[in-house]
Amino acid sequence: MSFPRFVELCEVGPRDGFQFEEKAIPTEVKLAVLDGLAHAGLRRIQATSFVHPKWVPQMADSEELVARLPANGGVIYTGLALNVRGVERAHEAGLMYVDLSIATNETHSRDNANMSVAEGVLQAEEMVRLAHEYEMQPQLGLQTVFGYVAPGDTPISEILALVGRFVELGIESLSLADSTGMANPMMIRERVRAVQNVAGGTPLVLHLHDTRGLGMANVVAALECGVTRFDTSLGGMGGCPFIPGATGNIATEDTVYLLEQLGIDSGIDLDEVAACSLRMETFLEKRLPGKIHQLRSLKASVR
Amino acid sequence: MSFPRFVELCEVGPRDGFQFEEKAIPTEVKLAVLDGLAHAGLRRIQATSFVHPKWVPQMADSEELVARLPANGGVIYTGLALNVRGVERAHEAGLMYVDLSIATNETHSRDNANMSVAEGVLQAEEMVRLAHEYEMQPQLGLQTVFGYVAPGDTPISEILALVGRFVELGIESLSLADSTGMANPMMIRERVRAVQNVAGGTPLVLHLHDTRGLGMANVVAALECGVTRFDTSLGGMGGCPFIPGATGNIATEDTVYLLEQLGIDSGIDLDEVAACSLRMETFLEKRLPGKIHQLRSLKASVR
Repeated sequence: MSFPRFVELCEVGPRDGFQFEEKAIPTEVKLAVLDGLAHAGLRRIQATSFVHPKWVPQMADSEELVARLPANGGVIYTGLALNVRGVERAHEAGLMYVDLSIATNETHSRDNANMSVAEGVLQAEEMVRLAHEYEMQPQLGLQTVFGYVAPGDTPISEILALVGRFVELGIESLSLADSTGMANPMMIRERVRAVQNVAGGTPLVLHLHDTRGLGMANVVAALECGVTRFDTSLGGMGGCPFIPGATGNIATEDTVYLLEQLGIDSGIDLDEVAACSLRMETFLEKRLPGKIHQLRSLKASVR
Repeated sequence: MSFPRFVELCEVGPRDGFQFEEKAIPTEVKLAVLDGLAHAGLRRIQATSFVHPKWVPQMADSEELVARLPANGGVIYTGLALNVRGVERAHEAGLMYVDLSIATNETHSRDNANMSVAEGVLQAEEMVRLAHEYEMQPQLGLQTVFGYVAPGDTPISEILALVGRFVELGIESLSLADSTGMANPMMIRERVRAVQNVAGGTPLVLHLHDTRGLGMANVVAALECGVTRFDTSLGGMGGCPFIPGATGNIATEDTVYLLEQLGIDSGIDLDEVAACSLRMETFLEKRLPGKIHQLRSLKASVR
């Protein structure tokens, strides 16, 4: 078993996690969470998304939030954009990093974005070019790379063609999303290695969901492939409200714990990030699916 | 990645899971659960424990339960015994298989069993001999093989000495328990391989808890070492009531799902075992930590 020495976690809870919460999260609370995460050692945080407030009311304050972001030296704040207007708004708000995300499965693309995969790809290319114009760093995310709940999996050859296309166009990093938590360690190895061959020097990010309980097993498989960047969310927030029990992203604290156990540095303080999740639980008045923060709520030496 | 073709799961929910539940589980309900598990394809089930009802009231019906076990052809029912009297009771009840379990950590042994590790070992040797006399098949379980919450980890050399001692004495199988969920994939590989070298032809069983979220990652690591037997519990029951959020054993349905994904046969029907967990949730009126059964509660094609 050979692992990287250092792994960077990108905290996506404030976007992927917050967006589905029923309870409105005031900007003040979001800022406090972001500050806590930065103090815990997170060096890349997806702070918000620039989508229409009609669709995601929780993100209606993105401009105000970005304007009030704390000046934590060395923390990269990113925002998600799903169309050209989103990139413009991220730029106008003052962000230097923008995360783009496209569907790779036709059914998913039509259901979610109301367009074909091909249309989504053309739009994303336009967004990448616009980001370059603005001198922003674009990350491209590919959704459902490891399967989708509806039949008709996207062949890996099509994924690789998309990777080649965007790597050539110029992206800061490439994110592979297991949107429905359907990846398994064997699939991770096969697909990640295939993508690495095409992506060359463009850094790879894995965006994993723990819906079927294989999140940490998939992280281990990816680490063995040399993946050094993962998206995680505090407390494992991000479960789709329409799927009971469907937990969200892999939990930041659980991933930090795993990395520590494997002797991999992430620069993140486990106790501090667990404290962030516990405060989030207090605010939301509900349990979050991550495990380590729950153990930390005890005074006993359960570490 | 090389995996075994077939893996046997031993269902321990009816013992390790039920024992901590506050709500009394009537014998009728237990029998219905055992029947459902057998129909789902489980071929080895730890049905009860022969401990004093003063300590574990939930297991006060062990004799009656065993007497009324359904005649499912080919299902091995086992009972846990923690002292000589327990082995006698298991024998008198009519069980052919008895599971013994001893502490390997001094603090744990004193706190849990009120004796030293050496005393526990002597007692277990007596129990193995008695099981032989009764022509029963004894499994020996070693607790906290992958760490304990109190300082003073048991050196692997001591674990190996115990393994050698009991393998020589003659046991049906050897179970290594990660009682506090502190194992990680690297540790699994190291310790399992070391034990395999000493255990020789004696089958190895892993008894994992998902307390820190690494259950499935640890199963994958063990599969790569060639381990073909795991203890699991329906719904992931078995959380210690004194540790909030501490989930119990790895969930049967989640493990079956992982095995299916890796192309490994377990002979267990995923839908049926998930249905067992859902019925258990209905009876207990609470959520169980396993993930796959929750997805199965939807009519949507989330498989």
